[in-house]
Amino acid sequence: MTTTTAPAGPRGLDRDLVRGEVDQILDTFLTEKARTAAGQRMPAEVTDVLRGFLFSGGKRIRPLLCVTGWHAAGGQGHPHPVLRTAASLEMFHAFCLIHDDVMDRSDTRRGHPTVHRTLASHHTRGRTNTAADRLGDSAAVLVGDLALVWSDKLLHTAGLTHRQLADVLPLIDAMRAEVMYGQYLDVTATGTPTDDVERALTVCRCKTAKYTIERPLHIGAALAGAAPALLEALSAFAVPVGEAFQLRDDILGVFGDPALTGKPALDDLRDGKPTVLAALTLRHTNRAQAEQLRRYLGSPTLTEAQADTVRDIITTVGAGRMVETMIAERYEQALQELQAAPLEPSAARLLRELADSAVRRRI
Amino acid sequence: MTTTTAPAGPRGLDRDLVRGEVDQILDTFLTEKARTAAGQRMPAEVTDVLRGFLFSGGKRIRPLLCVTGWHAAGGQGHPHPVLRTAASLEMFHAFCLIHDDVMDRSDTRRGHPTVHRTLASHHTRGRTNTAADRLGDSAAVLVGDLALVWSDKLLHTAGLTHRQLADVLPLIDAMRAEVMYGQYLDVTATGTPTDDVERALTVCRCKTAKYTIERPLHIGAALAGAAPALLEALSAFAVPVGEAFQLRDDILGVFGDPALTGKPALDDLRDGKPTVLAALTLRHTNRAQAEQLRRYLGSPTLTEAQADTVRDIITTVGAGRMVETMIAERYEQALQELQAAPLEPSAARLLRELADSAVRRRI
Repeated sequence: MTTTTAPAGPRGLDRDLVRGEVDQILDTFLTEKARTAAGQRMPAEVTDVLRGFLFSGGKRIRPLLCVTGWHAAGGQGHPHPVLRTAASLEMFHAFCLIHDDVMDRSDTRRGHPTVHRTLASHHTRGRTNTAADRLGDSAAVLVGDLALVWSDKLLHTAGLTHRQLADVLPLIDAMRAEVMYGQYLDVTATGTPTDDVERALTVCRCKTAKYTIERPLHIGAALAGAAPALLEALSAFAVPVGEAFQLRDDILGVFGDPALTGKPALDDLRDGKPTVLAALTLRHTNRAQAEQLRRYLGSPTLTEAQADTVRDIITTVGAGRMVETMIAERYEQALQELQAAPLEPSAARLLRELADSAVRRRI
Repeated sequence: MTTTTAPAGPRGLDRDLVRGEVDQILDTFLTEKARTAAGQRMPAEVTDVLRGFLFSGGKRIRPLLCVTGWHAAGGQGHPHPVLRTAASLEMFHAFCLIHDDVMDRSDTRRGHPTVHRTLASHHTRGRTNTAADRLGDSAAVLVGDLALVWSDKLLHTAGLTHRQLADVLPLIDAMRAEVMYGQYLDVTATGTPTDDVERALTVCRCKTAKYTIERPLHIGAALAGAAPALLEALSAFAVPVGEAFQLRDDILGVFGDPALTGKPALDDLRDGKPTVLAALTLRHTNRAQAEQLRRYLGSPTLTEAQADTVRDIITTVGAGRMVETMIAERYEQALQELQAAPLEPSAARLLRELADSAVRRRI
């Protein structure tokens, strides 16, 4: 039986309820920020654009895992501070994505124009296209920065006890530094992918395994006063699942259906993303294949036909299969860890579903 | 007599001692971060570049004012938590400047290459110049982001009591949002300056008066448990001084000596910075002058001769004199407020010196 209070449906943790509550908190918070901005002669487009971004999609996976971590550790009492902390993770994630899209020069996200594209189109008057693009980038960096500050604000006003705040602040600081370092490794290798599989795995661990799965679980569990052993058990599950999730993402980035993923199928290849898939491919090519890859990976003008050549090489050298094996191994390991961990049942069920979807998802 | 303990010399608050202690905290902190990064296969250039930036200069004015605010409110006890909070403000400032330089496309800061220029030159191999420049921008945004996270880390590990933390977190959140909104207003108007003096003054208030002077004083005073009335008295002094400081900066940006200011004399004009000086000039030009200004302000190819024409127009229409009058009025107002405020003497003395230097400085 579940030992928790709301947001728990008849089967315990209710993911739709969590998503609804988190969205409600974000909505109310942004409405308040928009009101304050208007009173101070500040431009409304900051909150408008951020709201548009937050509510254009997103699976709310980090908030959900934060609440799951709290349930997993047997969290008791009113869940509002937990939900607000969860919402602050989503706000932080908006910061990450908005900045990532600027760095990756992505035009679309979730099937909509990215924030910097939207802001560039707001400021074309009296500017060249180049100047408007630059301004869009700068303004998007600032909207992202504000999302980060507001993520803090949501946390600081979550109504946490001193003990809870003292427990989660180090985790949040660590999570943020990890994802930023991961992104640093990622962008400095983007465009010049190598066969350094270890480096690609480090990026995968920082940007996804720890940031998306482990830390949100930790943060929620810490709010419930979880002991170090439970945090370790959550890590033992979270890191392999997170890696599997990212490895699947890398495959979808090359072989996925743009109609499902919501991003152009050529982006990862044109950017020359230093993924594990790319590193394994480069490690197993012959000379002719390697030359083709060096020409095509990171080529901004890559055609569909050239992309098909790259896909053929990935498949021919067996890199796709190797990554599938890595995903399967990590899935098995995560399930073993999950079975051994002393978690509240509805949380364990959700984590099991998460592991399943990480390996099987098509979007 | 002073009621405080260290860092206070024989005359009370000792600014060199404060700067030395703050630098020591930043140095130790970055050494620790570099060590951790090395252990996790993370690139050393992040901490190297950030250290180079932090110790290439900077007046440490925000840390100094934070400690001053603490003294002003009669702060007692061991000052280490105050100094660490002060250091966290300098780390946050590094974030701001690094991002500002990316947005402004500045090549130099404090007489050295800016962080994005340095990082671009680290990553030229296998890249076109354009790609290296883009990468430099992205990497600098991330180094800035890490500085922001580490500013949090310094604060969270400052050893503040729960009460102190609860008092300063809202001030820090507010300060950050203010400076980001100010920067947003600034960058979205840069390149297309108008005669909107009020808007220019809002930027001046957010980016300098509040961010550089008022909030650091507030944060220090709050650490000493200052009552709301004292915070108000500090604001009444800080806002006019901060505005005077920025108005002086605007004049130095156009008429200053690059050998003293450390930045090229044409940057503000070439960027088309939406300063109060520019707005007042545009408000008082005749049609021929307005046409010239529209051609020259924001022109990336502005020559020295054209800059002299702009300077002549600013002088001819009396905008320089108007700004000097605004500075003098704000200085007088600040001194009156300072005399009326019940502040600890050595802190009051330092604030008086600050007001003097804000209006008279040449760098």
